[in-house]
Amino acid sequence: MSSIVPEFEAANAQHVAVVACMDARLDPAQVLGIELGSAHVIRNAGGRATDALRSVIISQQLLGTREIVIVHHTDCGMLTFSDLDIKAKVRKDLNEDVDHIAFLPFGDLKQSVRDDIAFFKKSPLVLDVPITGYIYDVKTGKIEKVDA
Amino acid sequence: MSSIVPEFEAANAQHVAVVACMDARLDPAQVLGIELGSAHVIRNAGGRATDALRSVIISQQLLGTREIVIVHHTDCGMLTFSDLDIKAKVRKDLNEDVDHIAFLPFGDLKQSVRDDIAFFKKSPLVLDVPITGYIYDVKTGKIEKVDA
Repeated sequence: MSSIVPEFEAANAQHVAVVACMDARLDPAQVLGIELGSAHVIRNAGGRATDALRSVIISQQLLGTREIVIVHHTDCGMLTFSDLDIKAKVRKDLNEDVDHIAFLPFGDLKQSVRDDIAFFKKSPLVLDVPITGYIYDVKTGKIEKVDA
Repeated sequence: MSSIVPEFEAANAQHVAVVACMDARLDPAQVLGIELGSAHVIRNAGGRATDALRSVIISQQLLGTREIVIVHHTDCGMLTFSDLDIKAKVRKDLNEDVDHIAFLPFGDLKQSVRDDIAFFKKSPLVLDVPITGYIYDVKTGKIEKVDA
């Protein structure tokens, strides 16, 4: 196994891994002005860092990315429920316990970005690379950088 | 907490959750002909189902999606290493143990799609909804359905 897969490194010219929310109204590549082939795009509910860790390690260790950009957005569904809420709903509707899953909702949008930047910066599994975080406004289409 | 967030349901008109690879050469929305606002897009290294579970539960339970589409692709980096390979590299380069992380590489592309369809179908945490899987050819731009 080589440490870098040249073909994928070439296909990932800007060496960036984007971590963004799965929300239907967000196109991370378009918002960030990233062309096809220029960045890994990792997306999950909320654009949370802990849930992206496996992918970021692979992206850095095997595919050579050396920057992380986090994108959360206004009106995010993750602001509308608590971890206890969804655990209770799953227990009631599906008759299943999901105590082993952290659903990672948040109550403050800017803080969620700061928390995710901090998670990557503190993780010994993530390289010391530039990490920036943004909030995308789904109504105006504007993007705002969050001071870490 | 309501079971469905109306605003987000409306914003997700096709009620589809897409699970796709983070690869820089893949634009899942473009490949599937999905317009902005029409689907949740969950992306991770390989487009693996287990890593998408938290997001799929939130997508179904709180945001009303009722279909899952999985997209893996040719020339995927996940075909180029083993779980032991990357664990050894992280141990050597970062001096960290990552025995707690399953990196989820695969050796057979079609089988990886079938495995991920099966994972969702078997999970008691995932609703019984239509689940289809595809392989995107990064060279030709064509997409092929995988029989489950």
